[in-house]
Order: sequence, then C-alpha cells, then structure tokens
Amino acid sequence: MEFSSGRNFMFRVPEGVELVGYLTDFAERHGISTGVLSGIGTLKNPRIGYFLEEEKKYKVMELTGTYELVSLSGNISIREGKPFIHLHVSLGGPDGKLYGGHLVEGEVFVAEVFIQELLGEPLERKPQDNGLSLWDAEKT
Amino acid sequence: MEFSSGRNFMFRVPEGVELVGYLTDFAERHGISTGVLSGIGTLKNPRIGYFLEEEKKYKVMELTGTYELVSLSGNISIREGKPFIHLHVSLGGPDGKLYGGHLVEGEVFVAEVFIQELLGEPLERKPQDNGLSLWDAEKT
Amino acid sequence: MEFSSGRNFMFRVPEGVELVGYLTDFAERHGISTGVLSGIGTLKNPRIGYFLEEEKKYKVMELTGTYELVSLSGNISIREGKPFIHLHVSLGGPDGKLYGGHLVEGEVFVAEVFIQELLGEPLERKPQDNGLSLWDAEKT
Repeated sequence: MEFSSGRNFMFRVPEGVELVGYLTDFAERHGISTGVLSGIGTLKNPRIGYFLEEEKKYKVMELTGTYELVSLSGNISIREGKPFIHLHVSLGGPDGKLYGGHLVEGEVFVAEVFIQELLGEPLERKPQDNGLSLWDAEKT
Repeated sequence: MEFSSGRNFMFRVPEGVELVGYLTDFAERHGISTGVLSGIGTLKNPRIGYFLEEEKKYKVMELTGTYELVSLSGNISIREGKPFIHLHVSLGGPDGKLYGGHLVEGEVFVAEVFIQELLGEPLERKPQDNGLSLWDAEKT
Repeated sequence: MEFSSGRNFMFRVPEGVELVGYLTDFAERHGISTGVLSGIGTLKNPRIGYFLEEEKKYKVMELTGTYELVSLSGNISIREGKPFIHLHVSLGGPDGKLYGGHLVEGEVFVAEVFIQELLGEPLERKPQDNGLSLWDAEKT
C-alpha cells in the first residue's frame, strides 16, 4: 500500500457525457491501474447510492435537476482485471443544501477533474461477504 | 492535460482575510499557473453560488454566521493572463447540516490549505456561450 | 510552508476500528510528520464537532447509525512532539442529506484512505488564545 508518484492529469470532461463511464474509459485509455481522483463542477440528474448493510446492496436515489458538484472524491483500482473507479460526491441544490453519497451516475454539465496516478503493486477489489467489493485491509 | 509535479505548499491562511482573494494573491506571488487546491477550516459569512443555466449567471447566497469548512476543493489555472482560482466548498452549521456550492467569498477564521502545483502546458479559461469560463474539453 | 513530495500511501482501514485513532497510529508507525489526507467510505455512529468561538470549545454531535463517508479531508502535522491528524468529514444519511464538521471519532465500516507525505520543516500546532491549536499563519 505504499506507492510512488505516477502521472498527473487535469482536464475538463466534455459536456453531456455520463461522468462515471467517461472516467472509467479515461483510466482504461491511459492505462491507469491505481490512482486518486478529485474534482468540482456541475452535474445533471445525478443518481447516488446509500449502502444498505442488511440488504447488502445500494439504495439508489435520483436527484432531479442541476446540482453544483461541490466535491468529487475517489480512487482508481483493479476489479476483475480492469480499472474500476469508486467515487463519492456532494451535490448542492439551488437553495445551497447538500446531498450526496456514492456516485452511481451523473450527466456532466461541467466537470474539472484531477487524477494522480500511483505506481506500485495494484490494489485489487475482491467480493466480500458484506456485498461490497473491497481491497484487502491494512493490519489493525 | 498531462502534468508533472511542481511545488507543494501547505499553510494556514491568516485569520480575518477574505479567502478567495488571499489564495489568488498567493498564487500570483508564488507564480503558480496550474495547480490543485484542498483544505479545511472555519469560515465566517461565506457567500456561495449556484449556477443558473438559463440565466447564464450565478445565484449568490450569503450564509450568516460561522461555518465549519468541511471541504474546500478546486484548482488554479489561467484566465485573462493571470492565475484564477475556482473553488467549491461544503460548510457545516451548528446543527451539523451542510450547505455549499461555488465559493464566491468568505472571511477566514481558520483555513489550512494544501496547494499542489502542476507543471506543463497551462490550462486556460475561455468564455463560453453558456456564460461560464472554461478550459477546452477533453475528447469524448 | 513549501514541501517536497514524500511517500504515498493508499489503503483500506480494517472494519470495526475507530478511524481517527487508527490513522494517528498509522502516521506514528510510518513516521509521517507532515501530510495531506483524503478518503471515502462508510462510517458508523460518527461524532462530529462544531467549534463554538465564544466558548472556545467544540460542540460535539453524535450521528446515530450508518453514514456514507462522502468526503474525508485533512492533514497531518506535529502537536506536542507527535503526529496529529486534523480531519473534516461530510456524511450522507439514507435520505441522501449531508451532515458534517470536524471528525471527533467514527467506527469504520469501510474507509479507503490516501495519504500524501510532505517533506520539509514540520508544521507545528501551538495553543492559541481562541482555544484552538494552530500552525503559525502565513503572512497577509
């Protein structure tokens, strides 16, 4: 879990594309196996998830309309042999109230994204008994 | 949109100054053209914006009082030949509820800020038809 | 307040541990004096603080149940000769509403954390008249 620094990417995602899919393609296209991701912008009709531990699945909520992407933070690692992006978002409505959770999908109005690649032994997501797909944990 | 790593700055912004103006001056003073910014702290009477797509301008809301600066995230790039800082914030009130959006301005009570400089072809903000000033987008 | 880049750590915190204590131990164990920290995940029964300026202390709120850790951001510096971690969090409930503030403590369900070590003159927290423990401020 110690990594050296790889490439840095900062860019604007094109208007109209779906954010999670676009960033997953970006990671594949540039061969990024491990990395950290952050960003800001504005999303339309984002769908966010809240994990239901007992049901072992996400409850998905759709927010209708346009939201300021107040924070986008997450990581890139390997799942089933491919780059997988895990993102959480906070989203601001027209009254300034914030909503958020796990980003399922969202249409980009504006997204300014920074990706910091990490080089080293890849972190791999493996299915867990709790219904999530996680890296091996550090020692306690 | 690929960058090498430049300098790292971590510091506390002086109490009482206006945050956006201070950070813009900081970037100018240190010659930072491109970078990523994050931070935490406490702000007073922050003014936040929500972009109104149809009106092509920000609706500005003033939050009265003191708010935990739960997240500060953004970037530095070039607009009209000078460093320009684009920041989004999430702000926590005394009841723990969060508000946020585009940071228009805020008085610093505490702000602990990290700036990571990026070196390479500068990203330049250019006026768009939608009323925003944006970098050229990546390819779809 | 200028630093060169040190080690990068990305890892999953073990389920069930208390997050602030675990990360403090992690910094001590790896000899990290200065750094920046971010992450996402899910926390249980987090306790968050809002600083009461007049009373010079935090009001602490406990959020009962499980919350998406929508953003975790903070830094590592020195207080009383040891690594000290200052973290702010935004937390999403089952209805997608966000709560947050200064993280006092929280039980980890999932926490995926990135730590970027910074090398240079350590930043030291010193007790202030306002009741907080802060680094010397930058010049205005």
